[in-house]
Amino acid sequence: MKHNMQILQELAAANGPLCVGLDTDPSYIPPSVLAKYDSPAQAVLAYNTEIIDRVATAKSACCFKVQIAYYEAMGLEGMRVYEQTLKAVKKSGLACISDIKRGDIAATAGAYARAHFSGDFETDIITINPYMGFDTLKPFTEYAQKAGKGMFVLLRTSNPGMTDIEQKELKEGGRVLDGVGAELERLSKEFASFYPEQTCSPVGAVVGCTEESDAKALREAYPDIFFLIPGYGAQGGAARIAATLLKNAGGTVNSSRGILCAWKKSPTCLQKEQDGSLTMDDIGDAAGAAAIEAKNDLLSAFAAL
Amino acid sequence: MKHNMQILQELAAANGPLCVGLDTDPSYIPPSVLAKYDSPAQAVLAYNTEIIDRVATAKSACCFKVQIAYYEAMGLEGMRVYEQTLKAVKKSGLACISDIKRGDIAATAGAYARAHFSGDFETDIITINPYMGFDTLKPFTEYAQKAGKGMFVLLRTSNPGMTDIEQKELKEGGRVLDGVGAELERLSKEFASFYPEQTCSPVGAVVGCTEESDAKALREAYPDIFFLIPGYGAQGGAARIAATLLKNAGGTVNSSRGILCAWKKSPTCLQKEQDGSLTMDDIGDAAGAAAIEAKNDLLSAFAAL
Repeated sequence: MKHNMQILQELAAANGPLCVGLDTDPSYIPPSVLAKYDSPAQAVLAYNTEIIDRVATAKSACCFKVQIAYYEAMGLEGMRVYEQTLKAVKKSGLACISDIKRGDIAATAGAYARAHFSGDFETDIITINPYMGFDTLKPFTEYAQKAGKGMFVLLRTSNPGMTDIEQKELKEGGRVLDGVGAELERLSKEFASFYPEQTCSPVGAVVGCTEESDAKALREAYPDIFFLIPGYGAQGGAARIAATLLKNAGGTVNSSRGILCAWKKSPTCLQKEQDGSLTMDDIGDAAGAAAIEAKNDLLSAFAAL
Repeated sequence: MKHNMQILQELAAANGPLCVGLDTDPSYIPPSVLAKYDSPAQAVLAYNTEIIDRVATAKSACCFKVQIAYYEAMGLEGMRVYEQTLKAVKKSGLACISDIKRGDIAATAGAYARAHFSGDFETDIITINPYMGFDTLKPFTEYAQKAGKGMFVLLRTSNPGMTDIEQKELKEGGRVLDGVGAELERLSKEFASFYPEQTCSPVGAVVGCTEESDAKALREAYPDIFFLIPGYGAQGGAARIAATLLKNAGGTVNSSRGILCAWKKSPTCLQKEQDGSLTMDDIGDAAGAAAIEAKNDLLSAFAAL
């Protein structure tokens, strides 16, 4: 059995490294289009479906990342739309990352693992917050063994506050995040004997960088770990930094708003929005074109390294 | 306007410090009782309702802590039961803590704040994971200002893995958790001028201890911060350690399985389970009695300090 991170790594080799982030806030949908739906949540589902369809057809990405916070924010109906979005991604044939950043003591982490690796909210790969300690990863890694599930553990984020804990230097040497990295390498070795025929570990790392030197250092420090790379596009990270992180074991580079809000930069969409003739189909087209553009941007940056 | 942490502090003074944890896994309900409901999730809701009713009537606790992981694990129906449990707590007049341990970059943290401080999943107080940095707290503290919402930030957990990051000593001096504590104190001062007439900050801390010396040191280090104290009861923390953490600004002490699974220690319930006559009412009685016992245990330990 191939585990999900291996499948994602192969999809990235085939389709390119783009991950399309479905952090779909209703405010990203033009008001005139939003108004055509029974509720903001239904408009989000329709928009997600349009984007998933275009990206899968064009093979412009290897995966989708669904940020659960935006669905929780829409309450019970939002959670139904979350479940339906996961199903639509599953049907597309691309990999599904649920960006949940859960983390809790072992018994509760077990409940989160059941929640996101089985049942209504079942996904391929989740994101995890390791702050409470490495014992809290175990319920998740058990699903990697028994069901081929994957996970990206927060290693280095790209928000300003990452200097508050992640980057702090320890008395014993190294930084806080180096401890997390060492644990990921340990897990990687453990899984190498469990999944001997596969080229990456089911446990990857979230690595966002805003400077190329950091990206280089982290890629060199963890050559065998597959990365989930946020911060490209709307968050300001350049393609070159992302490409640096794509070397060695590779990774997938997320763009959310750059794709979801692409209609705002499309003259056709803006004209139609003024006319009152803008449709979901139009903004889906803009998003689909932006995904192809992002894919090509990343591939060019990687080729130019 | 009183903020929710102030209300909780006053409820703790009136009803005692117990927090009843509704981490209600269906496996905690006797199989013969579980079988009477349409689904495990419906049995969980019925059990929660029984417990909330008894605890509120007896005034044996100041609040309930609803651990969202167990509801997520039951999928969409679980999320409906989560929403209905929050509503039942609201109706009881006691405070409601949603144990969600969310944490993400600012825009996404904003979505989590909306999700849990408004709409279907609206609660009084949430728990937060600060790992990604202190900028990620801002969307939550804004709700403390504008809507009196409260939050407990993870400061020190009681699981073995807390030595992996939280307890690590920094090169610049102090431990990782001291940095978190300093930020909580800074926020506390900020809120003291915003809520001048109130005796605690809307931003409290999760502090679990398994040794009395640690409890003493943390209580002395942060005298003005209200604590959420896990690890009492089933997790093995003694009442004396919890009582030590209740000094100064005070706190609330959580017991989940000690109350939810109290029927397993009740001779009446065990006999009825054998007879096949055990009801939800019976296990609710056992839980209600266990809550009163826990309250008295904590008050005695505090008086004996």
